[in-house]
Amino acid sequence: MKLSELLNIVLVVVLIFVLIRYNVKEANGEVNEASVVNSVAVMDSLHVKKSVGKRPFLFPMPVGVIGSYDSVGTPNIMSASWIGIVNSNPMSIGVSLRPATHTYNNVMRNKAFTVNIANEKLIEYVDWVGHYSGKDVNKFDVLPLTPVKSELVNAPYVHEFPVVLECKVVRTTNLGKHTHFVGQIMDVKVDTAIFKADKKFVDINKLRPVMTGHGSGYFGIGENLGRGGKVYQRLGITPDF
Amino acid sequence: MKLSELLNIVLVVVLIFVLIRYNVKEANGEVNEASVVNSVAVMDSLHVKKSVGKRPFLFPMPVGVIGSYDSVGTPNIMSASWIGIVNSNPMSIGVSLRPATHTYNNVMRNKAFTVNIANEKLIEYVDWVGHYSGKDVNKFDVLPLTPVKSELVNAPYVHEFPVVLECKVVRTTNLGKHTHFVGQIMDVKVDTAIFKADKKFVDINKLRPVMTGHGSGYFGIGENLGRGGKVYQRLGITPDF
Repeated sequence: MKLSELLNIVLVVVLIFVLIRYNVKEANGEVNEASVVNSVAVMDSLHVKKSVGKRPFLFPMPVGVIGSYDSVGTPNIMSASWIGIVNSNPMSIGVSLRPATHTYNNVMRNKAFTVNIANEKLIEYVDWVGHYSGKDVNKFDVLPLTPVKSELVNAPYVHEFPVVLECKVVRTTNLGKHTHFVGQIMDVKVDTAIFKADKKFVDINKLRPVMTGHGSGYFGIGENLGRGGKVYQRLGITPDF
Repeated sequence: MKLSELLNIVLVVVLIFVLIRYNVKEANGEVNEASVVNSVAVMDSLHVKKSVGKRPFLFPMPVGVIGSYDSVGTPNIMSASWIGIVNSNPMSIGVSLRPATHTYNNVMRNKAFTVNIANEKLIEYVDWVGHYSGKDVNKFDVLPLTPVKSELVNAPYVHEFPVVLECKVVRTTNLGKHTHFVGQIMDVKVDTAIFKADKKFVDINKLRPVMTGHGSGYFGIGENLGRGGKVYQRLGITPDF
């Protein structure tokens, strides 16, 4: 027998030994867990992904109603979902608007707006003010909603909405089709009926806020999944450092 | 009788006449509806508001998990709620981060990040990656989550998350305590299991996204309140223009 043939036999025996040993370890659950988790995950048919292109797929999105005055002081409101808190100091919220909207022109002129947070009972009004333009109709003339002039910024808020943010524009950035307005939050006003017992935080179960899911419509809030800063403890995973 | 006394009597008579006439009109339902609605609303004790100062009271807010690589290519993820779509063309999302975070430094260096959208089953992981810092631990080493290198941007996405947005930073703005990163969305990848029948839109009932309410914890989605562009029709209010 040549040396090379002997080597082949030795290699095959070693290979068989390794394979048997690996299988035994796996059956005993001794194999490295991380590598199994990863390989299972990568192969996992639950998470086969399909590319859908450049879409605004953020789920869910809030729905704010933006309050502003036009050039002759007529109050206007429109709904907007492309909004979000952007800074903690100074506390600020960003709102993206297309120049084609009446609200864009109002905010550009007055450097002020309000964000009015709806509840489930107001969803028809949220949708209505998003459907019609303030260029064509004074929305407060036809809807049972009441504009209240903010004492802090040159914009109206809506009396019937449970949470209102009064904002002064501190930055205007043309991003392309939309312009991003950063509004410094000068004050927030909350219906006393929806406070928690502490009178400082909003009880979200009393507020009953609304949100959007693309092509799926408006939704209310659902099950409480636990508190931030607490939920992670359920995993029981504490890193060593 | 002096002229002034006569004038007083005339004024009182006119006042009584006006009051009687007003009451008759109101009883007949002829009084202007808008003014009644407004006065009722303004007096409405349901909407007595209390000022709470400069607070980030946007309800609800999404919870994204931001994926990035550090200087030696170690993948990291952190949760962030101060995020929102900011532009439709080019399609972009804004993410606000504090310089103290590991993710801030990663995104600043690589000019890229991913936004990974969670479902209810992933809520413990969302909270976990928000609790620990990538400066102290490689989160993918201890969690059963799989980083996947994006082919489009220099950032990892998370295999187990049902929707991922791959973003290239096109604008960085220091707003104060937070810096606002505008990320152009190069592509969105969606688990095929959560598509609607059209294979283009996400079925939010299959996705089961999560959101936050300040001090109230994490929530799932609730009742479907109707479709955008349809719900307003329930009001039956069509303006004349």
